[in-house]
Order: sequence, then structure tokens, then C-alpha cells
Amino acid sequence: LAGQTPGGELAQRLNFLAEADRLKSVLRASLLCDASRRENSAEHSWHLALYALVMAAHAGPGVDIGRVIRMLLLHDLVEIDTGDVPIHSQNGQAHHSEAQLAAEEAAARRIFGLLPEAQGRELHALWAEFEANETPDAVFAKSLDRAQPVMQNIASGGGTWAEYRVTYTQLVERVGQRIDRGAPALWSWLSESARVYFGV
Amino acid sequence: LAGQTPGGELAQRLNFLAEADRLKSVLRASLLCDASRRENSAEHSWHLALYALVMAAHAGPGVDIGRVIRMLLLHDLVEIDTGDVPIHSQNGQAHHSEAQLAAEEAAARRIFGLLPEAQGRELHALWAEFEANETPDAVFAKSLDRAQPVMQNIASGGGTWAEYRVTYTQLVERVGQRIDRGAPALWSWLSESARVYFGV
Ligand SMILES: [Ca+2]
Repeated sequence: LAGQTPGGELAQRLNFLAEADRLKSVLRASLLCDASRRENSAEHSWHLALYALVMAAHAGPGVDIGRVIRMLLLHDLVEIDTGDVPIHSQNGQAHHSEAQLAAEEAAARRIFGLLPEAQGRELHALWAEFEANETPDAVFAKSLDRAQPVMQNIASGGGTWAEYRVTYTQLVERVGQRIDRGAPALWSWLSESARVYFGV
Repeated sequence: LAGQTPGGELAQRLNFLAEADRLKSVLRASLLCDASRRENSAEHSWHLALYALVMAAHAGPGVDIGRVIRMLLLHDLVEIDTGDVPIHSQNGQAHHSEAQLAAEEAAARRIFGLLPEAQGRELHALWAEFEANETPDAVFAKSLDRAQPVMQNIASGGGTWAEYRVTYTQLVERVGQRIDRGAPALWSWLSESARVYFGV
């Protein structure tokens, strides 16, 4: 939209929102529940925000669902620059490499930097809080982010677990522990429902 | 997921969330900003929730952005049953026919009825509030719902206006008045930026 936008904060915000549109073209490993195609990170972010809204009763004490929803709306925007790194790719090693974290931080600076300065700082901080996974809001948000793909795999009859050669033990270690930390009742249901796809 | 879910409210919520996944397969008239394909109603809902978060400063007095975000996350779920009705289709007449409104109400009953009863009632009411377009929260949410496709069309160089043979006057009447009601600064920017695509 360069050249079309006169100055001002409204124009900066619209420019940010047009840039955010590109998240609709970032494909993830997970399938839709009907297995018809892979999902993209924008519709995944919508689904997660809806998870937070609907699963609020299963959040721990001190969780502010409104903040969780905001976090989840933003949490994947950096993928516009970095792409999605599937959690089970490279045998589970790729997801938190130092290079990956540095690239995501640079992406956050660029993308949130499109906004008016104070607003960009606030939303960048909310993204960093999600990534740090320490506050109750972030822990619950991260649980949902790990739970939704498990649910997509269960709903689509095993989804992409076979493709990535994931074992049940790996599922527990790579995602189960995080889901359990923020939403134990949810992990209890998912872990039982997933067993059949691993023959355990 | 029938047969896989033991009873209980958690299972009802997961079943609702798996049903909601189908919104990712409902296609809209609007294009992505890069014009590469039509957008679906799930990613559109994400984009709108992000609009609300980012454009909060341009909302009128008394608007609760957290409620607006929740409304926008839910507002298109009925399209799982009814499909999207483009605002400029059938020369602008199809969007609010009585048959359409009845079908949407039936869809809301079915879809929100998947949730535990009290929660289903609450979310159904939030959807009905959006549709009624009377409260400050609904008026702002509806403004954004009308503004985002205008922005997609501007960003993609005119988008689908030519295909639907929309005139500038029709744009003002069908969407401009609603955008202006909830977010006048936004309509002022959009209406000026859109002129070039109508030669006015
Ligand atoms: Ca809509």
C-alpha cells in the first residue's frame, strides 16, 4: 500500500492490517478436521482464539481470557517472515533453535514496527510474553496452541502423525507436558483419545 | 467425532470446536490482499478480530473491545450451514432476505446448541446482538465487518468490485453508511482511497 497511505496513525494501522493478511498464505503441518487440506496460520489463529473463548472454564486461576485471546490473535504473525516450523519436524529439534528464535524476534520488530510506536511496543510485548510462556495467560495460551493440532489430528483420523513418524512418547514429551501445564483436563481427554492412533 | 467423545462439558466444547473448523472451508467473495485467491470465513474472522484489537482507538465511546473481538470471532459461524452471501450479489438484494435470516437463526440454534446449555445461550445472544446492530459494540463490530472487504479490494487493486459491477454510489449505500456509523474516521480514509477504482 506504499504511496496510497497519507500519514497518520489510522493509515499505519491499516498498513499493518494489510501486511497481516499475508498470514493467510502461511501453511502449517496440520490438516483441517476433514483432512481436505493443510490449514494456514491465520485460520489456525482464529480457531485458537475461539478455543480460548470456549474453553475458559478449563483455564487455571488468574487467567484473563481477554488477554489470552489477544495473545493468540497475534502469536503467529512473525511467521509472515519466518514461515511455520512444524513441532515434529527435524525429529523435534527445529522448533526452538537459536537461529529460529532470532529470526522470530527480527520479524516481530519489523511487523509490530509498522504500528504507531506505543501500540507496536504494547503488542510486541504481548507476543514476547506468549513466547516466554511464564505468566498464567501465556501458559494457558501455549497449552491451547499445542492442543489444537492434536485435536485436528484426532478429528482427521490420525492426521499427520504417521507422516512425521511421531511416537506416543514423543507426543507426550513435545506437546503433552505443555498442554498439561496450562489445561490438565484438556490433556487428559486428548491423551486418551489419541492413544488409538499410536496403538498404545 | 460422534462416538469418540465421552460425556461432559469438555467433550461438548471440543465437539463444537471441531464443528467450527468447517468455517475454514466456507469461501467468501473477497480476495486476499495479494489477489492470489478468495478468502475463507475463518481467516476473515481472524482478520476482523485483529482489526478490532488494532483499531480500538477509532471506536466510539462506550465500546468494549474485548466484547467486540468475541462477537467477531463468532459472527460468521452460521455460514457453516448457510454459506456466505456476498453483499453485492443479486444486485445487493440477497443479503437480508427473510429466508436468509431464518436460515441463519436455525444455524445459530444448531451450532451454539452443541455447547453446554448456559454457554451456548450466552454465545447465541452475542451473535444475535451483532446481527441486531444496535449496541455500541455491535455497531463497531459491524463497521469493521463492512470495512475489511473494502480494504481487501483497495489492497488488491480493485478486487471484486468490477466482477460484481458495483458503482461508487452502491458502495456508499451498501457498506459506507454502516462503516461511517461505527467508525467514521475509517470510512473517511477508505472512501477517499476507493475512489480511484470507480473513476470518481
Ligand atoms: Ca463477516
